[in-house]
Amino acid sequence: MRIAIDMDEVIADPLSKFIKLYNRDCGVPLDLVLDPGNEIYHHVPEAVNMKWFDYINEKGFFRDLPVIPGAVAGIQKLQEQHDVYIVSAAMEFRNSLEDKYDWLAEHFPFISWQNIMFCGDKIIEADILIDDRIKNFKDFKGRPLLFSSPHNMLITGYERVDTWEQVLKAIL
Amino acid sequence: MRIAIDMDEVIADPLSKFIKLYNRDCGVPLDLVLDPGNEIYHHVPEAVNMKWFDYINEKGFFRDLPVIPGAVAGIQKLQEQHDVYIVSAAMEFRNSLEDKYDWLAEHFPFISWQNIMFCGDKIIEADILIDDRIKNFKDFKGRPLLFSSPHNMLITGYERVDTWEQVLKAIL
Repeated sequence: MRIAIDMDEVIADPLSKFIKLYNRDCGVPLDLVLDPGNEIYHHVPEAVNMKWFDYINEKGFFRDLPVIPGAVAGIQKLQEQHDVYIVSAAMEFRNSLEDKYDWLAEHFPFISWQNIMFCGDKIIEADILIDDRIKNFKDFKGRPLLFSSPHNMLITGYERVDTWEQVLKAIL
Repeated sequence: MRIAIDMDEVIADPLSKFIKLYNRDCGVPLDLVLDPGNEIYHHVPEAVNMKWFDYINEKGFFRDLPVIPGAVAGIQKLQEQHDVYIVSAAMEFRNSLEDKYDWLAEHFPFISWQNIMFCGDKIIEADILIDDRIKNFKDFKGRPLLFSSPHNMLITGYERVDTWEQVLKAIL
């Protein structure tokens, strides 16, 4: 089977980095927990909301994101039986391209360049797509797996996985 | 219809740049015409063959490539009726990512980030794929259009387009 896997909030964790930067610049608490259905910018005073855009467009933002727990072992496990592709909507942020490439090379060196895709719309042909954004499932003809993230917790009607353990259970 | 379009040798011309660099460094004639079926490296003395790899991995190589004649007007014409995506196997060359992004922004500013894809394998869901490499047609379920380039001139069995004029005639 061909399995496509999103990056942000599925294998990489930008949220904790946002919170760290907001803490540094705006005094937002480091232990901030996002309410279900909320994006990070819902938790920040309006006046500093635009920081989000500054952070994410900065060179280096995506280079040192923490890896989502279980993602490395999970993808290695999937690769034993399946063709695994990383499919990230990186094209929205020009300065994320090299950072994401280098981040993957550091943490997932066993994924070859043939299996990496930076795109906008995810117009891919695959059997499974693991993603935290349902907009990416719109035209997808395979089986979508919604990877839980605070912002999507109020969404129903999709097969949901909360952790990489659950991903493996759902697929293998 | 969804139409996917390759970059190198379809809308961008790396060959003339290779020849210019080989001329500068190795005295290869500037008016070099590639024999049908040949890649650029077939026309270069073996001793300097590795230059190809140096050139293509250098920052800036893809930034100032000439645009293939007719590509800009051709894509604008296709966009009037169809969804056009740029799909480049850029992932092979890490240092090409920003250059290709900036090159597209300069010459094709009417193509939005949602419609750009840098990948390895072209595992895309589209109705038409215009490409000069038949390896990219292997798993493609739509209609492949082989865009002529010296290296593919001996290949038969594919619908072939020699120019952007012919692309428009084949699709519209």
